[in-house]
Amino acid sequence: MTQQSQRPAFAGWLSSTNDITRTFLAASRVPGLINMAGGLPEPTTFPVAELAAIAADVVRVHTQDVLGYGPVEGLPELRDALAKRFSSPDLTLTRANVFVTSAGMQGLDLVGKVLLEPGQLIACQFPTYLGALDAWRPREPTYRNIVLEDPAFDAVAALDGAQFAYTVPNFSNPSGRLVGVETRQALVDAAHRTGTWLVEDDPYGTLHYDGPPLPRMIDISARAQPSVPYAGPVVYMGTLSKEIAPGLRVGWVIAAPEFIEALAMAKLGADMCTSGLTQRVALAAIEAGLIEKIQPTILDIYRKRRDALCAAMREHLSAWLDWEVPVGGMFVWAVGRDPSLDTDALLPHAMAAGVCVAPSSVFDATGRNRRALRINFTRNDESRLTEGVRRLARAFEALHASNN
Amino acid sequence: MTQQSQRPAFAGWLSSTNDITRTFLAASRVPGLINMAGGLPEPTTFPVAELAAIAADVVRVHTQDVLGYGPVEGLPELRDALAKRFSSPDLTLTRANVFVTSAGMQGLDLVGKVLLEPGQLIACQFPTYLGALDAWRPREPTYRNIVLEDPAFDAVAALDGAQFAYTVPNFSNPSGRLVGVETRQALVDAAHRTGTWLVEDDPYGTLHYDGPPLPRMIDISARAQPSVPYAGPVVYMGTLSKEIAPGLRVGWVIAAPEFIEALAMAKLGADMCTSGLTQRVALAAIEAGLIEKIQPTILDIYRKRRDALCAAMREHLSAWLDWEVPVGGMFVWAVGRDPSLDTDALLPHAMAAGVCVAPSSVFDATGRNRRALRINFTRNDESRLTEGVRRLARAFEALHASNN
Repeated sequence: MTQQSQRPAFAGWLSSTNDITRTFLAASRVPGLINMAGGLPEPTTFPVAELAAIAADVVRVHTQDVLGYGPVEGLPELRDALAKRFSSPDLTLTRANVFVTSAGMQGLDLVGKVLLEPGQLIACQFPTYLGALDAWRPREPTYRNIVLEDPAFDAVAALDGAQFAYTVPNFSNPSGRLVGVETRQALVDAAHRTGTWLVEDDPYGTLHYDGPPLPRMIDISARAQPSVPYAGPVVYMGTLSKEIAPGLRVGWVIAAPEFIEALAMAKLGADMCTSGLTQRVALAAIEAGLIEKIQPTILDIYRKRRDALCAAMREHLSAWLDWEVPVGGMFVWAVGRDPSLDTDALLPHAMAAGVCVAPSSVFDATGRNRRALRINFTRNDESRLTEGVRRLARAFEALHASNN
Repeated sequence: MTQQSQRPAFAGWLSSTNDITRTFLAASRVPGLINMAGGLPEPTTFPVAELAAIAADVVRVHTQDVLGYGPVEGLPELRDALAKRFSSPDLTLTRANVFVTSAGMQGLDLVGKVLLEPGQLIACQFPTYLGALDAWRPREPTYRNIVLEDPAFDAVAALDGAQFAYTVPNFSNPSGRLVGVETRQALVDAAHRTGTWLVEDDPYGTLHYDGPPLPRMIDISARAQPSVPYAGPVVYMGTLSKEIAPGLRVGWVIAAPEFIEALAMAKLGADMCTSGLTQRVALAAIEAGLIEKIQPTILDIYRKRRDALCAAMREHLSAWLDWEVPVGGMFVWAVGRDPSLDTDALLPHAMAAGVCVAPSSVFDATGRNRRALRINFTRNDESRLTEGVRRLARAFEALHASNN
């Protein structure tokens, strides 16, 4: 029998991960637990019959596109459809501006691959999307936390010297905040002045419950520096995950052609091309108007759930937490009234009470922010949301008792 | 108007890429050109009617799996089906050994992410798969080229100190070579002795035209060090791309559970999960026996094409090239009889003559091997292969004339 040596060590970045996302996933398998931690859509909104018919149809009609290898940048017809969809009076997009990704997370992975040397700087909206931190971990970046709501926020100072700035201006994950027009303008001006790429991640843009959408930063940039195709510093990202269904794994990056070409080199070595089946289903769904068809239902369901969650929170959690009612998206961000609140310490009490929420430590590259919670309102109906809040109130009481 | 600064530089690895794969893709759009460069399957073998019915069915029946988010490791039922498929008398696999990827390329990307710090060493079968070099470029590894056919090949010396060894033992891309049983045994012994991970990439395993398949290295490893689940150093990878259709983008990694767990952390930040639509279609296709159903047709078509290609090469290219008839896979690897042959220099002559083949420089991390060609025989019928060879002979004559 041969002697066995130790295996080579795994890459160092793996030990920097938190496994809270996997805790959320595991939570969905705990019987009776109310999971308000993830960012899952309501599955009854999926247009099942339409997608079943489309799926069979595209295999038969577009066989080579669906079953063969496709261009790394995405199917030309889908790129054209996305260019048309996201063009505006200020912004003229062509196919050269559009890149199809295997959903939003892949866009973040590829942005990290093309822009980051180990240790380079990201100017990152704070608190920020957990998945973005996961995507960039293998590149081992450093972070400058930027707080867009800070009255003293200086966009040029925030962006200067960073490889890129990362923002979720519409109903940010986790804070639920809508970034105002003036701040958007300031970020775009700073990107134009410093040259820094400005990533505008917009998975929630269509989920607005009160009032009209605000202009996108890519529109503001194109208005200030017109060109065809768009050649500015904004990198606009989106996904069908919240608009139709996450299981399709189809998203997009819209940016200057030079950026699209760099993404193509990175995607060649990441998954070569996105599935032709999911791309053709996505294209047919867009052309059939399915997004517009199901959007009113989605907005109606999510608005009612948001209102139910906030009403229950007012009744049961006002002693412990402060929050703003979000005007869109999937989350309420609630901050401890007591500055010494530690939501990492709250989590086991919440799980014991039968509810799961996301503690703020995971939305920060340093893990130091322990004072807040992200609560999802899209995946559970009103009565479960109310019951979840009651359980969360019991968890606060238990934490309080254990601290005294 | 604001003053515009220079954008931050792209990551350095991007400038180390070759764009030959994109040249191949572009070649497929040149009218009249015979493309023998890529590794594309024959599309008439795709089981279109069956897959169309399956696609509609899984959307209706498995709606939540297909349209929702799924577990990062893959759908449990698909992992179980793959564990069953790849178990053998020597090898008992469980779900914990199986990881679903967005096709073979993603497996390579994730292996690089979990095993490589910048600059670390890969022991790489030489010549090697172009796509593997692309996948690992962002990790900026160093390479030890190992030549398995070298009579002086020393497996322990080859693997010692490397993070992992990369091999394609069945009909290797690009060489078409079948690695013999003794060499497989030596590699496994060396992996057991040194601890080095041994990646056995097997996209072509079912494409054998003469004689039975040889034992896999993961079987040899399990026989020497039995355990349930498998816990040894072999990382076995595969894909449905050559067995059913590449457009599904479904592949797998089979390895020790600790390795699967590391891959899961990397995939969370890469694309979160593979499409539930493509996974459910893949599972239904496997359960319906589609692989076994279409395999005889695939083997019959590809065997005839290989024979036609080699016959035409004997007639038209014997003066310029030496080669072995491959017993499986998709490629003939042909080496210049003249040691000073430069196939990079041949390529423009080939393109001018209306044929595209892959020069050897792209299958080597250093780019220094200029003496050989990879010629694909799966994508063109016999008459086009014969015409392609005639054009290639003209390209050799033109190169010869230009050198004199």
